[in-house]
Amino acid sequence: MEITLSPIAYINSTLNDKKECPKQGHEGGIEAQVIIEPEYLDAMKGLKEGSEIILLTWLHKADRTCLEVHPRGDSSRPKRGVFATRSPDRPNPIGVHKVTIKKITENTLTVYPLETLDGTPIVDIKVAMRK
Amino acid sequence: MEITLSPIAYINSTLNDKKECPKQGHEGGIEAQVIIEPEYLDAMKGLKEGSEIILLTWLHKADRTCLEVHPRGDSSRPKRGVFATRSPDRPNPIGVHKVTIKKITENTLTVYPLETLDGTPIVDIKVAMRK
Repeated sequence: MEITLSPIAYINSTLNDKKECPKQGHEGGIEAQVIIEPEYLDAMKGLKEGSEIILLTWLHKADRTCLEVHPRGDSSRPKRGVFATRSPDRPNPIGVHKVTIKKITENTLTVYPLETLDGTPIVDIKVAMRK
Repeated sequence: MEITLSPIAYINSTLNDKKECPKQGHEGGIEAQVIIEPEYLDAMKGLKEGSEIILLTWLHKADRTCLEVHPRGDSSRPKRGVFATRSPDRPNPIGVHKVTIKKITENTLTVYPLETLDGTPIVDIKVAMRK
């Protein structure tokens, strides 16, 4: 079975180098823009400034052949299966990011805090669960 | 840009009909099994019984052409863009499910609570954030 996705948006960010990306949004994530592709603008209706959403990103620079990693890139720690980590390197590198919408314009969500590279494709947006 | 995913696991569940699925795990989700594909067993190392994980599912019965829905299928409520909902119907229907691992065997995670159909493909597994 093969699954095909098309990006519904892309990230505008000042983060341009994998090495300068924080590992998680709450560890120094910054404000970034989510630019929605024109054909998906109707799917944005009802999003509100101040609300929390989940962004699913396609981590396009990740190593998809990697099954085990040193947690947090620390080689003094024993290797662990990627499913037991949050490493971007994994067979299907989809990132899950909880962010707050700071501002909405016609095709752009300004969100915070986000730790992904400039140009990262977004494959889905959902409202965060309240609990 | 086109993105291709291969399932890394499939769900075994007693839920066989979309209509009988709860809308969210905490609204009557049940115990289910995640059966890992043989080539990804190394990526499971380090998962622990009792810990919380995020499953990303491919909602294979969803309507990918849908951009607006009545929230929670309630036609008395005005339509809203799918990105402002948790509807399974959306351009890239990836489900995000926080579950607890009840039991681990060689290729199987028994998890709770899960609200997805039997046979649903899993595209990623991550540890849940602590905060």
